[in-house]
Amino acid sequence: MRLRKKPWIKDEIITYDRWVVNEPNEYRGRWDEWFQNKAPIHLELGTGKGNFVVTLAEKHADCNFIGVEIKEEVLIAAVRKSVEKGLKNIAFLWFNINDIEDVFAKDEVSRIYLNFSDPWPKNRHAKRRLTHRGFLEKYKKILNKGGQIHLKTDNEPLFEFSLNEFSEQGFQLRNITFDLHNSRFEEAKKVMTEYEQRFVKQGLKIYRFEAVV
Amino acid sequence: MRLRKKPWIKDEIITYDRWVVNEPNEYRGRWDEWFQNKAPIHLELGTGKGNFVVTLAEKHADCNFIGVEIKEEVLIAAVRKSVEKGLKNIAFLWFNINDIEDVFAKDEVSRIYLNFSDPWPKNRHAKRRLTHRGFLEKYKKILNKGGQIHLKTDNEPLFEFSLNEFSEQGFQLRNITFDLHNSRFEEAKKVMTEYEQRFVKQGLKIYRFEAVV
Ligand SMILES: C[S@@+](CC[C@H](N)C(=O)[O-])C[C@H]1O[C@@H](n2cnc3c(N)ncnc32)[C@H](O)[C@@H]1O
Ligand SMILES: C[S@@+](CC[C@H](N)C(=O)[O-])C[C@H]1O[C@@H](n2cnc3c(N)ncnc32)[C@H](O)[C@@H]1O
Repeated sequence: MRLRKKPWIKDEIITYDRWVVNEPNEYRGRWDEWFQNKAPIHLELGTGKGNFVVTLAEKHADCNFIGVEIKEEVLIAAVRKSVEKGLKNIAFLWFNINDIEDVFAKDEVSRIYLNFSDPWPKNRHAKRRLTHRGFLEKYKKILNKGGQIHLKTDNEPLFEFSLNEFSEQGFQLRNITFDLHNSRFEEAKKVMTEYEQRFVKQGLKIYRFEAVV
Repeated sequence: MRLRKKPWIKDEIITYDRWVVNEPNEYRGRWDEWFQNKAPIHLELGTGKGNFVVTLAEKHADCNFIGVEIKEEVLIAAVRKSVEKGLKNIAFLWFNINDIEDVFAKDEVSRIYLNFSDPWPKNRHAKRRLTHRGFLEKYKKILNKGGQIHLKTDNEPLFEFSLNEFSEQGFQLRNITFDLHNSRFEEAKKVMTEYEQRFVKQGLKIYRFEAVV
């Protein structure tokens, strides 16, 4: 059993059952029923406090967004934002990305965002990085043909590692930039995550790429 | 007509006709005749003073090496090294890489090295970069199936540009490193170019990748 430091957060989260899916496995292969439409599904894995995915959901009414996050103490912030804005095209899943194949069926997802994933700098922890080939194999299964993964990070070693893992797994990379906020990628600059806002203020470079299945 | 500052260099170069091929177009499609064997052909484009390709030729008697360089004042150094060592598996071509397809036939080359190519930092000069898609298309034609291009540079913008160009042209990238001399790629560290020796002494990072057709 996981230790819950602030048990009332769990109580609050489950009251928002229009935004937080309590038994996500039940919707495997039929997320269109949950959203009550067939719009493409975009995931953010490791959503944190959710600024990124909530802003995208506001901007793009023609897509359905799902934020996945394991820590309830940050997820609650993302959920509250969506409740306040009354967004209908967003959901949050409170589970471990390791189990992603239990929640999404083959070809069910159009895009995955990986923003400022934990770098796990020690080699012996490489398997925990969300861009390790073990995860990429799972993502490939749930992504549809032409599906994409968009990655942002401030961490150069994680970026280098990720370029290698994606290439070796046969993704085609594009729009690679070593300094997003001084690049020509205007659209991608506009929507920032909480970590990104902090790093950009500190003058750190943000690395980014897109990978196509 | 090109202006020759030191005309005696040209005179010296052409005396070494065992190492410098004066009419390379004549060997298009039959480089095995020039080398008198069918060993795989590895090119270095923009060889400079030749330490890299000469060292490889010494180490790998089972391959044929060709250095291409347009400036005779640096090429002469590479030629002299090969003459002194009496190497048989190396040749130098004194011409513009733009014309590479006139000198090598389809599938004739196994590997291309691009080391510290001129970065051409201005956008309007992007076409001159040796990793511009215009060049990559030519390289793809002369490389055989499974052929590889190995790139090293100290220049981050050129590295970023090159990652994009190679990916978009359908090469598979691998062994990408942002800091070769602090990486696990022991073999690739060993043989350095003249520019590399200088940059490593200055403490600069060397970027490297391999691309497979
Ligand atoms: C460094 S934070 C970045 C948060 C957010 N993407 C941002 O850029 O502001 C990484 C987040 O991923 C979550 N996370 C890491 N591994 C996870 C996993 N296996 N399953 C679900 N969430 C995970 C963490 O709990 C954390 O909130
Ligand atoms: C920056 S130097 C690097 C030399 C060497 N590779 C090294 O790392 O020490 C680039 C070299 O490429 C040569 N070069 C550039 N463009 C060329 C072209 N189109 N054809 C032939 N040589 C070229 C230049 O003359 C120069 O010697």
